[in-house]
Amino acid sequence: MKSFSIVFSRLLIVVFVSFLGCKNDTSKDITTNEAVEVLKDFTQYVNPFIGTSNFGTTNPGPIAVRGMANVSPFNVAGPQNLPLEKDSRWLSTPYVHENTFLTGFSHVNLSGVGCPELGVILAMPTTGDVETNHLNYGSTYSKEKATVSYYSNHIDKYNVKVEATATTRVGVSKYHFPAGKSNILLNLGLGLTNEEGAMVKVVSPTEIEGMRSVGSFCYYKPEEAYPVYFVARFSKPADTFGVWKTPRTYDGVEGKWMGYNGKNRLKENYTKEVVGDSIGAYMRYNFDKPSTVEMKIGVSYISIENARENLEKETANKTFDAVLADTKNDWNQHLSRIEVEGGTADDKTIFYTALYHTLIHPNTLNDFNGEYPKMKTRETLKTDGTRYTTFSFWDTYRNLHQLMSLVYPEQQSNMVKSMLQIYDESGWLPKWELNATETTTMVGDPAGIIIADTYLKGIRDFDIEKAYQAMKKSATQLENNPLRPGLKDYIEKGYLTTSTIHSGSVSTTQEYNISDFAIAQLAKALDKKDDYNTFSKRSISYRNLFDKEFNLLRPKNEDGSWLTPYNPEYGANFVENVGFIEGNAWQYTFMVSHDTKGLIDLMGGDDALANQLENVFSKKQFDMANEPDIGYPFLFKYIKGKEHKTDALVQQLLSTYFKNTPDGLPGNDDTGTMSAWAVFSMMGIYPVSPAEPSYAIFPSKFDKVIIHLNNTYYKNNRLILSKESTPEGNKVKVNKEIYKNHFITHNAITSSK
Amino acid sequence: MKSFSIVFSRLLIVVFVSFLGCKNDTSKDITTNEAVEVLKDFTQYVNPFIGTSNFGTTNPGPIAVRGMANVSPFNVAGPQNLPLEKDSRWLSTPYVHENTFLTGFSHVNLSGVGCPELGVILAMPTTGDVETNHLNYGSTYSKEKATVSYYSNHIDKYNVKVEATATTRVGVSKYHFPAGKSNILLNLGLGLTNEEGAMVKVVSPTEIEGMRSVGSFCYYKPEEAYPVYFVARFSKPADTFGVWKTPRTYDGVEGKWMGYNGKNRLKENYTKEVVGDSIGAYMRYNFDKPSTVEMKIGVSYISIENARENLEKETANKTFDAVLADTKNDWNQHLSRIEVEGGTADDKTIFYTALYHTLIHPNTLNDFNGEYPKMKTRETLKTDGTRYTTFSFWDTYRNLHQLMSLVYPEQQSNMVKSMLQIYDESGWLPKWELNATETTTMVGDPAGIIIADTYLKGIRDFDIEKAYQAMKKSATQLENNPLRPGLKDYIEKGYLTTSTIHSGSVSTTQEYNISDFAIAQLAKALDKKDDYNTFSKRSISYRNLFDKEFNLLRPKNEDGSWLTPYNPEYGANFVENVGFIEGNAWQYTFMVSHDTKGLIDLMGGDDALANQLENVFSKKQFDMANEPDIGYPFLFKYIKGKEHKTDALVQQLLSTYFKNTPDGLPGNDDTGTMSAWAVFSMMGIYPVSPAEPSYAIFPSKFDKVIIHLNNTYYKNNRLILSKESTPEGNKVKVNKEIYKNHFITHNAITSSK
Repeated sequence: MKSFSIVFSRLLIVVFVSFLGCKNDTSKDITTNEAVEVLKDFTQYVNPFIGTSNFGTTNPGPIAVRGMANVSPFNVAGPQNLPLEKDSRWLSTPYVHENTFLTGFSHVNLSGVGCPELGVILAMPTTGDVETNHLNYGSTYSKEKATVSYYSNHIDKYNVKVEATATTRVGVSKYHFPAGKSNILLNLGLGLTNEEGAMVKVVSPTEIEGMRSVGSFCYYKPEEAYPVYFVARFSKPADTFGVWKTPRTYDGVEGKWMGYNGKNRLKENYTKEVVGDSIGAYMRYNFDKPSTVEMKIGVSYISIENARENLEKETANKTFDAVLADTKNDWNQHLSRIEVEGGTADDKTIFYTALYHTLIHPNTLNDFNGEYPKMKTRETLKTDGTRYTTFSFWDTYRNLHQLMSLVYPEQQSNMVKSMLQIYDESGWLPKWELNATETTTMVGDPAGIIIADTYLKGIRDFDIEKAYQAMKKSATQLENNPLRPGLKDYIEKGYLTTSTIHSGSVSTTQEYNISDFAIAQLAKALDKKDDYNTFSKRSISYRNLFDKEFNLLRPKNEDGSWLTPYNPEYGANFVENVGFIEGNAWQYTFMVSHDTKGLIDLMGGDDALANQLENVFSKKQFDMANEPDIGYPFLFKYIKGKEHKTDALVQQLLSTYFKNTPDGLPGNDDTGTMSAWAVFSMMGIYPVSPAEPSYAIFPSKFDKVIIHLNNTYYKNNRLILSKESTPEGNKVKVNKEIYKNHFITHNAITSSK
Repeated sequence: MKSFSIVFSRLLIVVFVSFLGCKNDTSKDITTNEAVEVLKDFTQYVNPFIGTSNFGTTNPGPIAVRGMANVSPFNVAGPQNLPLEKDSRWLSTPYVHENTFLTGFSHVNLSGVGCPELGVILAMPTTGDVETNHLNYGSTYSKEKATVSYYSNHIDKYNVKVEATATTRVGVSKYHFPAGKSNILLNLGLGLTNEEGAMVKVVSPTEIEGMRSVGSFCYYKPEEAYPVYFVARFSKPADTFGVWKTPRTYDGVEGKWMGYNGKNRLKENYTKEVVGDSIGAYMRYNFDKPSTVEMKIGVSYISIENARENLEKETANKTFDAVLADTKNDWNQHLSRIEVEGGTADDKTIFYTALYHTLIHPNTLNDFNGEYPKMKTRETLKTDGTRYTTFSFWDTYRNLHQLMSLVYPEQQSNMVKSMLQIYDESGWLPKWELNATETTTMVGDPAGIIIADTYLKGIRDFDIEKAYQAMKKSATQLENNPLRPGLKDYIEKGYLTTSTIHSGSVSTTQEYNISDFAIAQLAKALDKKDDYNTFSKRSISYRNLFDKEFNLLRPKNEDGSWLTPYNPEYGANFVENVGFIEGNAWQYTFMVSHDTKGLIDLMGGDDALANQLENVFSKKQFDMANEPDIGYPFLFKYIKGKEHKTDALVQQLLSTYFKNTPDGLPGNDDTGTMSAWAVFSMMGIYPVSPAEPSYAIFPSKFDKVIIHLNNTYYKNNRLILSKESTPEGNKVKVNKEIYKNHFITHNAITSSK
């Protein structure tokens, strides 16, 4: 991406808004020279409640585009919320739509993930005396409303209306208190993360600062737990303030001398740091009439000073309403990159909410001043562009980055640059990076797939030689390789055996194959012929694991024999399985889209593959909620004569799993991967084979889809996909021409007339 | 005290040392215009091990005069130290002489107190791998040596020699490591205090910063727990560094998912804050030959920044040896205020060690820049002089402040000013103030006694009207009076009843009487005649509790009847007792030295009093280790014909209870009160009646005692007490004249020829 931006103005219905006026960093990336009249409010089609049930693990709280801060209602603590209560089960979201007991609003959260993390810095307005135990101060709520960058509810117990919005790094809340004694609690004990420990200090009657320890995502790597810092500012000075701490309960003789053993302590008007696992601070008001207080909480992963600067630079002197208007406007700018015509209102809502979900993660890690923490040691580094984080690559390499490359290439470029920063800092590309920790969650070596895919699509403003070197490192370093355990067996035998790793020998082999395919494709583009040959060969080694007996993949033992006995259906529904991670042979066998032709040969021809693929669906082995098989519906496009099976199947899956309701996602959104699937599927194109710059193409859900292209990267200013009714049925039109093939290259789609 | 100081230079044997070169604040207070040739090293007579056994609760670690920092060996943790192990019993010292298992060196400590507190910021040198559990890294030690401002031992397990010294606010250590892997641990989990919670951050390979929560002295007021901040600097950059945290063990389902549940975590080369109850940091070296590392730990009760400034201002560019020389020199300057001739070497050691103990507490609270925390809320305030803390007034009002007024009046003046600062900040004079918290330990209202005593001795450079107002406030405010509970009964009935307070109705009445006597004496000096009459009358109301049946004091019930049945011996040895705090009727009845004449009348004459007083000793009711009766030996001076009983009794008590051995104090030093008793008793004068500017006078332990007086306050430059052999036995000479009376006024002793 060029270092300067040709910023254009967009005309809203009544107001003229310049990008320059918007402080959300991501807007810096938006570059186009096409003047577009944005006459619509696309944000009206976002329903933030979609995905807040059925384990979608999204939350309805306000967030800016790729924001660091997010003000989520927190309703997963306390027995009132059973069975979806955070301490009684593995629960990875601060908010569940069917729960009723609210204990605050958390200010850093993850969206659509499968492990509990963050969900900390909880604010809660209450009235009456200061009560700091969430089980006591919690309340039911009503009149819940959520739109883009806005959430509101009414806390029943206190008759307090809450409104919330956010900028990139600041959560902004507005509390409408009745007359009388009112409190704003900042609870640093409660959280979704399984880490503990915090510090808090009241700086003045209008400011509180502190930090909270988080980490151990998926109960891994506790030694990499890290702090998130915050500064909270209040629009009205508190009449009194204080901090609290509930210490542990002592055993032994000392406990007998402590009348206060384990009891909560309030420290009124105390102005020093308090540290502990269960601590908090409060601001207290005595209103003679109903009054509002606005609270801004700036966050940072670097320091309290940076949290304060983030708060000041993004929200100083801005009212709640002004912040809301700016953030909503920025969302509209982003959502308007794709315009759709036709479809029902629900279709539009499902579509734009999905697009919204793809613009949450990866999110911003760096502070306003560019500072961000170095991997693991967390020394302070500085970035020019945005340093993105929350890279759930095992999920997102399949479609989310392809969506970014097409619609937001300036963001995708920055994501690749962030990946290279991580490589510089840690010596390895990321796999599941979160806030400068490598969580090492899931398997495979997906970063290189994303890099190759990005580069091959013409987004090349990053150091490709470094990237290539990084990709080759994880593909070739046999010892102490965190990304590719079992690499020696993989290279020597062509596959991991049931003895190589604890579980997932087949699926890991497949993941390495796809990564090697990506290296080969990139090697070809970079004219590295030997590597192209080597990695091309490596990329199809899964064939060694194809068992004609089942016409499916099957694990092999160390001696080369098949794992026996063998039931290919075993392993569905996340049952641990020696051959496959989060799946079974049905859900993995076809995950070789880069070699579908090879698979056809292995299976015995087009019909054999078609039959077996149809079996996946008829045997109910297809899992819409898990990544390995989400490309399956598009594989029919590879099978001569079966190509149109995709079209109906996609529409059927869309209508079954994607709805304008809280349970309107098939399961975990997986940091936007499910949503990216919906966006592509509804538009009528899908990037079936990662690191191949092409899309399967099929009829859209809508009559017309207009993608405004960034022609810093692409020749055309826009891509129009539309339906053309013909005597032979609906055809897909790409821009002005009816498109006849079943795949279309990235180059064609971004440059054809 | 005048705001300018006429600083004079003192000539040491070889070096010329100016006060101006010394950074210990207390030196600023020393003012005299007498040039004294200090030809002796008085510090040679200090044995810091005295009081480190027999619950003396002193420690042998280095400390500057009235220092904030003190590097004490910490040997009270772990079963190896049973029965004197801190978690198995009420133990109020970081060091016990007979214990053997060392787990570090704590950097803020209390000396001679009866409640566990501070004893935190533990440093420990180890070798080999990093082991952070004190039960595992702890070691026996040998070659222990302690002199003024210097401590050394040899840690057996690691073959490491430790040396330690200190400035006012900085502990300085020197570790002699063998070749190989070596570590310096900073353990913020372990401590003597019953508070928990800390923060630590490695700033660079030569610096660590952090804070530790302390408080709840005597298991009171947990809500006033507060932080102590520190910065540690290392003379050699660490090869690697890290932090650790041992979190709590989770119960419930989450615990099952945590392979690391409750286990210690090391974070190598991590540079962010870690918070928690059980945390620490380490510096790690790999030496190719035996090497030394010097470590300086600056402390502050205000902030990390101030801790750093304290460190820099007091020790920047100074080697361990230079710090040691300066601090030792300052001690010598202070100790040399009193010179003694004659006596054995042990006598001198007992004497100068006692004097040393009186110069530890009250200690400095303010930082080098004058900042100190406001009472309770801990906002930052600034002081011109030294803000002293650790005011254990129930103990020290009886003799320690009288010693200060005589020998270090500039310090006593500053202590009174500190008391008035506390009054300004909290609305009340202190009772048992510790680091800007009022611990409310013990009973009575002793601050005013000290103020009156100080003023009546001619130390008047403070706001006496404010002080008088403060004294009257606690003597007259009936409701919400933290200093004088039960005041209404006291004023109306003349005494507290068995129903007024939980325990100590008689002793509390006596304490209020003494305070009222002090107000009366001050009122007289200030020409407030009505107050003089009112409070004089109030000061003898204990007479209502005198029971002729026992010729002792006895509690009265609410209806005015005597408490029945009644055993006046009950209550010794700290058994809780309805009438008396920490004592019984024998130990309290004579604690009315301001009205000994009245008591003589109540008892039926001189002989009756003498008999009853002798009974205290013969019935073994005298408790040398507790304050109420420590004035008893001097009461014979009030009884005609029995005056010389004091002389032998004092010598007998001195030789029984005060020794040049670790158990050489009768019990808790009570922040120097026991030691002040020894200093006065050995010199041959004792301030029997607080707020009366006079002393009982009797033969000294020594042939000659020279007190160098500060003639900013006193007419004479020196006071010489000596023995004169006469045909009638030894007489006491005051300066040049044999003194014939049994009491001598403060004015006479500081101005007579």
